[in-house]
Amino acid sequence: MDGLQDLAARLEARLSTDPEVIARCARDTSRAAPEGLPVAVVLAECTGDVSAALAWANETGTRVSVRGAGTGLTGGANAYDGGLVISLERMNRILSIDADDRLAVVQPGVITAELDAACREEGLFFPPDPASARTCSVGGNIATNAGGLRCVAHGVTSDWIAGLEVVLADGRVMRTGARTRKNVVGYDLTRLFVGSEGTLGIVTEATVRLKTVPEGTPRTFRASFARVEDAGRAVTAIVNGPADPEVLELMDALSVEIIESFHPSGLRVPGGAMLVGQTVGLDSLAKAEEIARTCVEHGADDADISDSDQLLEARRLSNPALNARGLKISCDIGVPVSKLAEIFHGIKAISSRHGLRVSSVAHAGDGNLHSTVESPDTPAGIAAADAVIDDITKLALALGGTISGEHGIGSVKRHELPWQQDAVALDVQRGIKRALDPNGILTPDRAI
Amino acid sequence: MDGLQDLAARLEARLSTDPEVIARCARDTSRAAPEGLPVAVVLAECTGDVSAALAWANETGTRVSVRGAGTGLTGGANAYDGGLVISLERMNRILSIDADDRLAVVQPGVITAELDAACREEGLFFPPDPASARTCSVGGNIATNAGGLRCVAHGVTSDWIAGLEVVLADGRVMRTGARTRKNVVGYDLTRLFVGSEGTLGIVTEATVRLKTVPEGTPRTFRASFARVEDAGRAVTAIVNGPADPEVLELMDALSVEIIESFHPSGLRVPGGAMLVGQTVGLDSLAKAEEIARTCVEHGADDADISDSDQLLEARRLSNPALNARGLKISCDIGVPVSKLAEIFHGIKAISSRHGLRVSSVAHAGDGNLHSTVESPDTPAGIAAADAVIDDITKLALALGGTISGEHGIGSVKRHELPWQQDAVALDVQRGIKRALDPNGILTPDRAI
Repeated sequence: MDGLQDLAARLEARLSTDPEVIARCARDTSRAAPEGLPVAVVLAECTGDVSAALAWANETGTRVSVRGAGTGLTGGANAYDGGLVISLERMNRILSIDADDRLAVVQPGVITAELDAACREEGLFFPPDPASARTCSVGGNIATNAGGLRCVAHGVTSDWIAGLEVVLADGRVMRTGARTRKNVVGYDLTRLFVGSEGTLGIVTEATVRLKTVPEGTPRTFRASFARVEDAGRAVTAIVNGPADPEVLELMDALSVEIIESFHPSGLRVPGGAMLVGQTVGLDSLAKAEEIARTCVEHGADDADISDSDQLLEARRLSNPALNARGLKISCDIGVPVSKLAEIFHGIKAISSRHGLRVSSVAHAGDGNLHSTVESPDTPAGIAAADAVIDDITKLALALGGTISGEHGIGSVKRHELPWQQDAVALDVQRGIKRALDPNGILTPDRAI
Repeated sequence: MDGLQDLAARLEARLSTDPEVIARCARDTSRAAPEGLPVAVVLAECTGDVSAALAWANETGTRVSVRGAGTGLTGGANAYDGGLVISLERMNRILSIDADDRLAVVQPGVITAELDAACREEGLFFPPDPASARTCSVGGNIATNAGGLRCVAHGVTSDWIAGLEVVLADGRVMRTGARTRKNVVGYDLTRLFVGSEGTLGIVTEATVRLKTVPEGTPRTFRASFARVEDAGRAVTAIVNGPADPEVLELMDALSVEIIESFHPSGLRVPGGAMLVGQTVGLDSLAKAEEIARTCVEHGADDADISDSDQLLEARRLSNPALNARGLKISCDIGVPVSKLAEIFHGIKAISSRHGLRVSSVAHAGDGNLHSTVESPDTPAGIAAADAVIDDITKLALALGGTISGEHGIGSVKRHELPWQQDAVALDVQRGIKRALDPNGILTPDRAI
């Protein structure tokens, strides 16, 4: 690669061409394979490193992929052939936690659960809570506008980002946002960069909003349903009722079976589906009881409440359990909560029509579903599974839904974009991309 | 104007050149004067009207200003000399309210309080709540990312917009967002358009999120402080405590005096400042009592609780009361809540140094302050008042704050942009503007 020695002279040991480092940083957790071998990995330690790397890539026309912790599920961080990988794993410091203003300033490589734990020592927490919280990074959460288990109560990552430091494609550095709750100054660049999947700039620092940990003991609830559609109807009733759960998750029978066989914890496999969730606050018990009652009214076989969060831990194992079986062909659809029963009914019909088993877990409270297809790992098996996912995704759209609730588009879902977005919206996004990255070096041909 | 008859042929009676209509639609409520006389006003009745008008303006290079209800405070909707005004006042229908998904679909000309009232009939409400809610439009709220009294609990307008229909500068129509809680598909165009003050496109329909009206009786609280700094410290303690107010407003002594003389309601003028606010929910009384205790602990002379919202009504009269006195030179700064005492102390010092009285009202719970300068309506008096506002604004920035919390930039605050934003962020915004409006016809030379 032209002039890589110039970049090496600037970055010294932070530029690695070690094949082991390259192999480790070349891909995410998705089914998508890297496009080829990158020439080097920048193990950035500061904003200046990222800036130098991008200035070099922009001048030499080198395509760049950006890597946080590599837990992405759409191929968004996969390497380009002959490209440069910029890894942010070493930029992993929490720079400050300010309890009075409920703000923290962090580098992008901080592990999400570690930020949350540090904030809890101050009586605060970081609400975004992807299932991979113990292994994913805040920078990755920002790049994908990640969701997770607590979104039903607290919204998504972008709701908790007050400001960013961003390095643009040409290496220039800018700051967005403010440390105030309200800030209406020009365009909302913060929100534009959150969820842009590394295509517009690289986030090198984030000011994140925190919330006060509620008083009282969190309560976990669980209910089993013979029919998954009934569980869907119960969810619609719960989120429109007064009980205000912080977490409201659904696992269908097959997904409970897969999780239990990966990590046995005594989970009873339901006939159709299990709802699990959590309430918080001084009235957490009353709220959990209200939810249990609503479940029984909507056909639950049983419902109980506990102080342990073992059930939520089980839910978090869904992805590792599916990965352990080699099952990676899945979707990340969202539907309006009123359509949950209908989408579950439709998924059953699609599964029977294709003759392939489908397991579903859902952040049910916000209508976000991950369905995974069991299919042989052969070209024909993969094509058959893809056809199932396409049908499920199109059904979600027909119900007023979305092709991605929280994983983003990356390369894996790019063919689905025109199913949801009109030609003008697609064109506007390409125009913004060209304005910010005229040479097209930053995660090109992904996300939009 | 070249070819205005072509547009008239297309729009018929929805294109008006009546001088009275032009005069009525040529300006907002701010101190800024329109730049000159527009050639015509489009009284749009549908998306197609807006599209036809913009296509014509883009072809003829005619500058366009966009008008909702004209309550803006920054000159953002003021007419251009020889320009076209597009008024959305006739696009004022609520198209649907969906209780299960807590969504409404509205046209931009709907009056904010009327939307809120219609939702309350379904047990829901629209959280954004600018002080001008009874006269401003949802489209204007979207254009400015308006704030208001309930932001401390519910955030700003952009937090409640799920999707938009937008007409671009060249007349093309696109849709953004989705009807789901989570939607991570390409760039967040919804958030880019919210707050863009008519410079990137014209919103012709919005899908807005609603919230369930909490059970229980809302309670209003009031506390009087001899020193405004103590009131500031009380606010910091309240928002970091468990009481979770829905509204938390501050009026200093001079602003209470101005409101009371405009519309006498028996408000007692405090020595330094008055805090007023509201709690909601089944435990609203306990929360209001907690807040009253916190106020007394922080030096309040007295504190009481009631079921009437007369005090909040008084707070809403602040702008009309100031306007009635001809006082329009004010700011819309924000500071981190921990800096409230410091900014009030600083405003006192600035007021003494300049020898001009300053009244302040604040959405204190989110750190957003409006300070208004009493100064003669002469060129010298205006210049002196502007100097006071500049000093207050720079102090807010020194404390980690913002030049605008909720009114936006328009033309009035454009000179302040470089005080807050770096050259790269300013340049990026200009690049986005050029990408979406290459001929520069949409509200040019404002907002960014």
